[in-house]
Amino acid sequence: MNLLTGACIIGQSGGPTSVINASALGVIQTALQSEQITRVLGAANGIKGVLNDRLYDMGQEDPKELELLKFTPSSALGSCRYKLADPDADDTDYQRILEIFKKYDVRYFFYNGGNDSMDTCNKISKYMQKVGYECHIIGVPKTIDNDLNGTDHCPGFASAAKYIATSCMEVWQDAHVYDTGMVTVVEIMGRHAGWLTASSGLATWAGFGPNLIYLPETVFDMDSFLADVKAIYEKTGKCMVAVSEGIHYADGQFVSEAETSATDGFGHAQLGGLAVMLADAIKQETGAKVRGIELSLLQRCAAHAASQTDIEESWSAGKAAVEAAVSGITDKMVAFQCSRDGGYQCKTVLEPLDIVANFEKKVPRNWINEAGNGIEQPFIDYALPLIQGETAAPKENSLPRFAKLKKIFTTDME
Amino acid sequence: MNLLTGACIIGQSGGPTSVINASALGVIQTALQSEQITRVLGAANGIKGVLNDRLYDMGQEDPKELELLKFTPSSALGSCRYKLADPDADDTDYQRILEIFKKYDVRYFFYNGGNDSMDTCNKISKYMQKVGYECHIIGVPKTIDNDLNGTDHCPGFASAAKYIATSCMEVWQDAHVYDTGMVTVVEIMGRHAGWLTASSGLATWAGFGPNLIYLPETVFDMDSFLADVKAIYEKTGKCMVAVSEGIHYADGQFVSEAETSATDGFGHAQLGGLAVMLADAIKQETGAKVRGIELSLLQRCAAHAASQTDIEESWSAGKAAVEAAVSGITDKMVAFQCSRDGGYQCKTVLEPLDIVANFEKKVPRNWINEAGNGIEQPFIDYALPLIQGETAAPKENSLPRFAKLKKIFTTDME
Repeated sequence: MNLLTGACIIGQSGGPTSVINASALGVIQTALQSEQITRVLGAANGIKGVLNDRLYDMGQEDPKELELLKFTPSSALGSCRYKLADPDADDTDYQRILEIFKKYDVRYFFYNGGNDSMDTCNKISKYMQKVGYECHIIGVPKTIDNDLNGTDHCPGFASAAKYIATSCMEVWQDAHVYDTGMVTVVEIMGRHAGWLTASSGLATWAGFGPNLIYLPETVFDMDSFLADVKAIYEKTGKCMVAVSEGIHYADGQFVSEAETSATDGFGHAQLGGLAVMLADAIKQETGAKVRGIELSLLQRCAAHAASQTDIEESWSAGKAAVEAAVSGITDKMVAFQCSRDGGYQCKTVLEPLDIVANFEKKVPRNWINEAGNGIEQPFIDYALPLIQGETAAPKENSLPRFAKLKKIFTTDME
Repeated sequence: MNLLTGACIIGQSGGPTSVINASALGVIQTALQSEQITRVLGAANGIKGVLNDRLYDMGQEDPKELELLKFTPSSALGSCRYKLADPDADDTDYQRILEIFKKYDVRYFFYNGGNDSMDTCNKISKYMQKVGYECHIIGVPKTIDNDLNGTDHCPGFASAAKYIATSCMEVWQDAHVYDTGMVTVVEIMGRHAGWLTASSGLATWAGFGPNLIYLPETVFDMDSFLADVKAIYEKTGKCMVAVSEGIHYADGQFVSEAETSATDGFGHAQLGGLAVMLADAIKQETGAKVRGIELSLLQRCAAHAASQTDIEESWSAGKAAVEAAVSGITDKMVAFQCSRDGGYQCKTVLEPLDIVANFEKKVPRNWINEAGNGIEQPFIDYALPLIQGETAAPKENSLPRFAKLKKIFTTDME
């Protein structure tokens, strides 16, 4: 067997998570130990780092600092939201990527990201095949949104879910402290898929969580919503509500859409301010004291509350990517295959890179109650194993001790 | 020596904290063991529970569930924001309190709260002295705001400070992930005192925190603020800002005041929406992508990230209150006296109950930099020892296991 030898590039892309660096570390540590991989390069800000020849030499890093990546939130190599053109229409970027791959004899490429990143990875993989440049390309998934097709769940989801469930339990406690009326609305990330918002149902399952949960998988109706809240509020004097940022009316319009017209690099609407808007609507309807809470960035970077299961699985996804690539496999994405009967078990498998393309995996409709305002047991059974285990994140002065990388550019070494 | 024997009441009042229940537990556990205390009663929703004869018999609780109070955020007995009248103007409430004290032979009263609660405690103490009803009354301080006079720091502050510093470090990581411009504004609680907002400076000290920090101790000027942000943003492409909800203009008006006209039970303005408002102003000025994050209730209830030092000290404050009371002391508040030279040491002392009256302890001006947009080392030296130690909060299914109390009313037992 003729083993492929050369450098590798690892890049991170899209919105970060608490554990995306654990996956990068899985790639880096496994690659550094591989005899087939001559040099491990980290792309600064994802594919933009390749295009701009801004590549870190990961072999120069202190292994102890690298190890801290397991517990360091946000993409340590930097991220991007850069959309590659259709190569049939414009292959400028692809030619440049090929040029850089040749410059450093890059024979392995690992891309760590969500839907859009797997699309980027897939396009590069197909281009390299087309031009006959031998390079093994594997995608390593991540996304707190948990909406990637072809995998039981996504690295990063569980830590966000655990933070959301924990925070909802704590907010529930706080919101019940007075004997006066109170309605709390918690806004949770997730444009089109309600996995994160559904995770607030873990808090309800544990005894201290939202009374009502609204996902983007069902149509949102303001009148029904206000009636739901009012009924619980009038009966108990309290009501806690969790809503996805992506709840929408029957015509598809985001409830929060009127709030802002800004869009991100992929043309997605930037959402926000929904919790306060809904809280105001409830106040008008019920006269209740209200509070809108947006979990905002915290839910995707709260590494201090990460799931140890998520950390380990994320790391193993990176490791599996390198092991597959050096064994001769290319054009795949690492995925998780899990069983929950007789104890949770999770193994890495490989799926076609285009399995995630243009498809957002939703929460199954029968995991949501019929009224569309709560979560059913199958979701709990699905999510609970994923959030198990406490992170052993190192601290310094009782504050997080994040990895401090040297980030030495290859171009500085020439 | 004629030892006073009778029942005790413990009440909690004002906004809750992550560790206020640790103080209540210190009272309850010590009182349950005292030979002079015949019965331990918990007032449902603070002084309102006394007025309404809604008192829990704490002796009926499972000691194992009680122990979980150490790790259960928010006031387990329920809180209130009820303001007692001046007894010289209207002593109706006081007569009722005396009636209940007599009904249950209450000879010990412990009140666990902040400024307003210590005022309530003080008024009751003075009234009981005036009418000659022998009752030993001790205040147990709490407030995340850390603004009580007469004590080195307040139980509850350190856990909020630790959560704020940790979250700021994580948000800093997240906000630096793209190579595109980004300004983040984090809004932190604290109407008139900037202790919590200053705690974000711990993140800066640790290497990942706000570039600019604005406290209510200095006058806020919008032009200077925008110039400060712009200078850093134009130099680095990023800027992270922490602001207190209570920042105000030279005339005393809250910057956020126009946002809402609601007030709480004590006539305080209800603040909020400031982060988004300032982020918008920055966007107008710089064109930067911005994000406003309000830590909201999370900062006062995030028990999962509590300081173990805070938990232990809060418990010891409750214990000290009971020990003082049964030894014959009354009309005092427990306070902390600390030394930081040669290692942090903290002991409980007793101060007059009225020491906190109508006085909000501010961050010393020389702990803030001259420009009024950052924190100096003395604050770090002050706050760092307080946040040390990780909570050993018990989990169930990797989610918080809060205390589940039976809460049996004395009136149900009659």
